[in-house]
Amino acid sequence: MAELFTVLAPSHAYSLLEPHLPVDVRGERLPITRALSRVLCQDLVAPVDLPDFPRSTMDGFAVRAPDTYGASEGLPAYLTVSGEVLMGAPAAMGVGAGEAVRIATGGMIPDGADAVVMVENTQEVDATTIEVVRPVAPGENVLRVGEDITAGATVLASGHMLRPQDMGGLAALGLIDVEVARRLRVAIVSGGDELVPPQRVPGPGQIRDINTTTLCALVERAGHEPLAMGIVPDVYEELAAAARRAMDAADVVILSAGSSVSTRDMTAQAIASLGQPGVLVHGVSLRPGKPTILAVANGKPVFGLPGNPVSCMVTFDLFVAPTLARLSGLVGPPPRQLVRARLAHNIPSAAGREDYVQVRVEPRDGEPWAVPVFGKSNLIYTLVRSDGMVKVELDQGGLREGDWVEVILF
Amino acid sequence: MAELFTVLAPSHAYSLLEPHLPVDVRGERLPITRALSRVLCQDLVAPVDLPDFPRSTMDGFAVRAPDTYGASEGLPAYLTVSGEVLMGAPAAMGVGAGEAVRIATGGMIPDGADAVVMVENTQEVDATTIEVVRPVAPGENVLRVGEDITAGATVLASGHMLRPQDMGGLAALGLIDVEVARRLRVAIVSGGDELVPPQRVPGPGQIRDINTTTLCALVERAGHEPLAMGIVPDVYEELAAAARRAMDAADVVILSAGSSVSTRDMTAQAIASLGQPGVLVHGVSLRPGKPTILAVANGKPVFGLPGNPVSCMVTFDLFVAPTLARLSGLVGPPPRQLVRARLAHNIPSAAGREDYVQVRVEPRDGEPWAVPVFGKSNLIYTLVRSDGMVKVELDQGGLREGDWVEVILF
Repeated sequence: MAELFTVLAPSHAYSLLEPHLPVDVRGERLPITRALSRVLCQDLVAPVDLPDFPRSTMDGFAVRAPDTYGASEGLPAYLTVSGEVLMGAPAAMGVGAGEAVRIATGGMIPDGADAVVMVENTQEVDATTIEVVRPVAPGENVLRVGEDITAGATVLASGHMLRPQDMGGLAALGLIDVEVARRLRVAIVSGGDELVPPQRVPGPGQIRDINTTTLCALVERAGHEPLAMGIVPDVYEELAAAARRAMDAADVVILSAGSSVSTRDMTAQAIASLGQPGVLVHGVSLRPGKPTILAVANGKPVFGLPGNPVSCMVTFDLFVAPTLARLSGLVGPPPRQLVRARLAHNIPSAAGREDYVQVRVEPRDGEPWAVPVFGKSNLIYTLVRSDGMVKVELDQGGLREGDWVEVILF
Repeated sequence: MAELFTVLAPSHAYSLLEPHLPVDVRGERLPITRALSRVLCQDLVAPVDLPDFPRSTMDGFAVRAPDTYGASEGLPAYLTVSGEVLMGAPAAMGVGAGEAVRIATGGMIPDGADAVVMVENTQEVDATTIEVVRPVAPGENVLRVGEDITAGATVLASGHMLRPQDMGGLAALGLIDVEVARRLRVAIVSGGDELVPPQRVPGPGQIRDINTTTLCALVERAGHEPLAMGIVPDVYEELAAAARRAMDAADVVILSAGSSVSTRDMTAQAIASLGQPGVLVHGVSLRPGKPTILAVANGKPVFGLPGNPVSCMVTFDLFVAPTLARLSGLVGPPPRQLVRARLAHNIPSAAGREDYVQVRVEPRDGEPWAVPVFGKSNLIYTLVRSDGMVKVELDQGGLREGDWVEVILF
């Protein structure tokens, strides 16, 4: 029953996995309207200048700037209104010396004009004459060609996760479909003689499977496609066969093992049977989550996550989430929501181990406080009652009441 | 051409809209596997205790605690191993005085036993006898009935947005489908003679419509269903007809108006024609975003957002996002990602106006800095090049270089 392994620091553990992950990102072409939160896998270059004609940024009159120099309330410049620019149409007329052309915000600056006088700084004298009471400089109230982005400039680089405004930027340039990383299929196998599916009423000694549901939702929230492979009993052949089916069906495999030592050993063996290089890490200096297994088999990452619901979620966050981001070509870490709060109680921790403590965030006297939700790591409601978790660094040896800490919301 | 309106502080503006929003949340029943990030619209109560039998939290032996009192390395307690608990099955035997039953983590505590001795604190003497070298207290290494959650307790309250661990918690209790707020249909109408759809090549004086794409993605990211209603020219009858079609098709209507004063006036008129109470706010002391219109017509919120891409996004965040959250019954503000950073330049601001300044967040000497991305509010790439925005409060009159500020990521 002895479980022999060397525990590694979480970052060290991940660094042993990473070099074995496939580097090629598998892409697909999607219309931008379906590409929100997907990771670009091409560099995008602006095909045109934006705008590709000079535009007015104000309602007013397009003029030759020098015609307004020296204008004031006391000594206005008089200009002849020679026409009007219609929205969405080229200016039908040029602007000559002493002339002004009526223009609305977004209108195309006519030839000859180099500035726009705001309507507020003009006065109509008669049907064809205006007074200008303030001078404008050349270029004033005009959006230059290419001022938003110039043709040939990089719009967005490969590895960027697309946000709503990026979609707008692409639409503006007519880049209506883009190459993005395919969603990854992530197969989830839950192991345990005691488990029944959530829709079944458990018999004596049985419990409902929690981790398949949690892991599927975590995969979905990360933007990928979960495949629930069902529950397998604690029988080596059945676990190994389920793991092989998961390998065939998916890009990434998660085995949520039982929590006893013997079932954890069985999980490690089943993973080792899947292919090369096999198990890279078995045991992490982490609480909760120590008996985590990181492996790669024939180019596919395989995770053996602890069966306890809290450990399962913490280790997903630490190892699976960055792996999914990496396989998608995302530059930088996966997005996480962080808040700062003051710690409401001391948190003890053993040096040489990274701890994640569940907390509730609540306001006290106008400041956010992180209140530890102490609970065994086999209680799913420890997570349900928490807003996030606080990390205690490997060699920090605990945190003190009143300290400002960063809460990773989940 | 005069645009006459009283500008209101953003929070005041929203407070005029809110009382007119419908209070009934329209729900639908969904399996939990499809309910991620949806807002609950029922209170959920635990139908059973979790766990509903006492479970071991360790690999070891179920015992009567008093049998171990006083045990030590020097003077171990000797117990007779009378059987083994199988996972997922009721214990076949009770534990009598002087007896121990082998049990794995998660196993059901047999009758008579009240504690579990960890395997590490035992020694096998022969096939049926163990030495116990450390005492256990009653309840030690045992998960009590109802320790996770007790029957009748509130699991999650109406108004809560479902997270992955909540799904796990519901699965554990067999609550496999839940009543959640329906996704809202949000219709988006873009107005402007100069606009063509992104897939068309603009003619002289024309530009591609940006805001329909951005707004659809913002609605999608907020968890709702965008309906792109297309582009309408600056003709009152056409705009009003498009607004009526949008009202028929959707729960919420957004008109992205042109940016000239005359088209903004036309938008206000078109919105006023839709029903009662009509326009509640026209003009907000906000930059960018001043000419925003907030309205309710026959129980449906209608927004007239400025045509400039930056204004459009800021005003969506300030007014549309909280409205969608409110209509979904969400308790608390819509989730936003915030980071703290130091400001890299002074930001001037007029007192009496709320400013939102786009910033890029970058590390400098180990600290995050918010670098303002100055750009006209009609440049979409101001947003594409930014990571978020910094708010300058109504009466703050600007922010100073080096100040710690909160960046609202987008």
